[in-house]
Amino acid sequence: MTITQLPTPGFSFELLATLGNARAGILHTPRGDILTPAFMPVGTAGTVKAMTPAELVTPPIDARIILGNTYHLYLRPGLEVMRAVGGLHRFAGWSRPILTDSGGFQVFSLAGINAIDDEGVTFRSHIDGSKHRLTPEVSMDIQGVLGSDIAMCFDQCPPGDAAPEVIDRAIARTTAWAHRCLAVARPAGQALFGIVQGGIDLDRRHAHRAVLAELPFDGLAIGGLSVGEDIPEMYRVLDGLVADFPSTRPRYLMGVGTPADLERGVAAGVDMFDCVMPTRNARNGSLFTSVGKVTISNAKHRADPGPLDPECPCDTCATASRAYLRHLHMSREILFNRLATLHNLTFYARHMRRLRDRILSQGAKAP
Amino acid sequence: MTITQLPTPGFSFELLATLGNARAGILHTPRGDILTPAFMPVGTAGTVKAMTPAELVTPPIDARIILGNTYHLYLRPGLEVMRAVGGLHRFAGWSRPILTDSGGFQVFSLAGINAIDDEGVTFRSHIDGSKHRLTPEVSMDIQGVLGSDIAMCFDQCPPGDAAPEVIDRAIARTTAWAHRCLAVARPAGQALFGIVQGGIDLDRRHAHRAVLAELPFDGLAIGGLSVGEDIPEMYRVLDGLVADFPSTRPRYLMGVGTPADLERGVAAGVDMFDCVMPTRNARNGSLFTSVGKVTISNAKHRADPGPLDPECPCDTCATASRAYLRHLHMSREILFNRLATLHNLTFYARHMRRLRDRILSQGAKAP
Repeated sequence: MTITQLPTPGFSFELLATLGNARAGILHTPRGDILTPAFMPVGTAGTVKAMTPAELVTPPIDARIILGNTYHLYLRPGLEVMRAVGGLHRFAGWSRPILTDSGGFQVFSLAGINAIDDEGVTFRSHIDGSKHRLTPEVSMDIQGVLGSDIAMCFDQCPPGDAAPEVIDRAIARTTAWAHRCLAVARPAGQALFGIVQGGIDLDRRHAHRAVLAELPFDGLAIGGLSVGEDIPEMYRVLDGLVADFPSTRPRYLMGVGTPADLERGVAAGVDMFDCVMPTRNARNGSLFTSVGKVTISNAKHRADPGPLDPECPCDTCATASRAYLRHLHMSREILFNRLATLHNLTFYARHMRRLRDRILSQGAKAP
Repeated sequence: MTITQLPTPGFSFELLATLGNARAGILHTPRGDILTPAFMPVGTAGTVKAMTPAELVTPPIDARIILGNTYHLYLRPGLEVMRAVGGLHRFAGWSRPILTDSGGFQVFSLAGINAIDDEGVTFRSHIDGSKHRLTPEVSMDIQGVLGSDIAMCFDQCPPGDAAPEVIDRAIARTTAWAHRCLAVARPAGQALFGIVQGGIDLDRRHAHRAVLAELPFDGLAIGGLSVGEDIPEMYRVLDGLVADFPSTRPRYLMGVGTPADLERGVAAGVDMFDCVMPTRNARNGSLFTSVGKVTISNAKHRADPGPLDPECPCDTCATASRAYLRHLHMSREILFNRLATLHNLTFYARHMRRLRDRILSQGAKAP
């Protein structure tokens, strides 16, 4: 058992066991323990869509950490409101850890970009077209007001098919911005993770990883994957990269992925994941089960009195038939989004718990 | 204490106390007791929108009965599905009583009417335009498949501004259809209520009431109010009509209403109510509180860290600030519909409980 005190007071990483490159551990934070490998449900705008905090902390979901989106919360409700209510935890009624992204990914993917320069990004809100500017310092200030437990560096994430020179410029900027994020004073109890870029080029990835590993980050993330590249390319990068990350700090694969992606990521040595897939797919009627993906709108479920997944312990599978779920989905009932999201998050939580248990039971105890 | 066995085996009405014309009692049914006066949340399409059954049966809501809409459930999911899953209770996971309307009101208000005759109504579905025919016999058959605890007679409900001859024809048809509904065999444990029509004309109302009171209904309803007439007119009809209903059977005011309407209805002697107002208003951001109606989109709530209603014991008021509720509403988050509906149904439930407690504490015990 190896416990490493991380640079930010109150944070430590405990490595419990390894199985090949896969790791099982605990990220200790002032707001509670995060059992790794961990999946973080995405709470874009101050809510994991359709769910209450009480449902998320109740087993079998038992989410130890959720993600909040800096870009969305900065635009709405905005910092004045966030200050008035005392930060994101109190706003959303969530007392366990929260990780906030930097806003960078959303600015590059959702907003209308006016200008990117070495200083930062000027963009227009996707809500009302208003003009805003995000820099490493502004992103850190916003994350400070949100009061997240883990802040992320403001980075530049190029698309999956970006040219080498675009990727090199993004790497250089991300490195410069990493230094600037570290220089900003954070509220007590807020850790900071750096983000490794470099597209699908392993040499570039390793070079950037080596640079960031020297900086006093509490953890390192892999950004810029699952942004349009082929899946085998993503797996190749993970397999060739993650094991060389510092073993004493948590590793976070951003925005990934399918259950299979999570399994591959864990095998490569990743400790933390986030993705909208379980929650978004749920609302679209695409449900993960022990017998494969179920498209609930399919007519074959029309009069099926059986449960969605007989092996699932969630309330949805305990109380609703496939026929009822299909009816709610076809009728666009709000209750469908609740029941489907509860189920998909349960599936993801159990998937991660199985992967973790396998490492603990079959792996080697950390020295 | 007076317990009257109602015509349908397993159903009895217990009158506990009266205060003027107001009554407090218990409607005993095979699936449980309904404390009256009672408000029935509306579960249009097999779900009280945004709510789970577990939330509805948990105090302070503790709904003893909900309403299901025959028209909606007949069109979707349809009777084949309903038969396959074993009825509405199992379909929706609701084990307490359900009252189903006859489908008449929705046919007249939602569907495209092709023809009304003494036999029944031919209409087109508001979902896909398909052609259907509803008669007293068909309505009873559908309600039998749904397996509701209280079925309603198929009636003709004219608009509030209908001409006298239109109202007279609706009364005559409703009477003839009442006899035909009574003639249909019902599943064991299903009661049947008649519906008194007559617009806002007290003489017509009394004449129809007298006719229906002679028939072996388990309860009598007032239909055709809150359909466009002025509020004082509705109150005048209630005050002049309801006290003459048989005192030994439950009285149900259909589709009403505001908290003030419920109070007036209870004072006039009504025992049961249903209305989409608490649930629909919730989704539109209109919230009932002890300090009056709150329009949550109002900018003044933007940074308000206080609860929606400090006197309300619901989870919404315990966990969410007005600022958070407003944010969720402005962001069109599903969670808003949940939290708002939970609150409004709590408000209605507590309102009814207060009215009932006042009758019990200040009224005369029934002999």
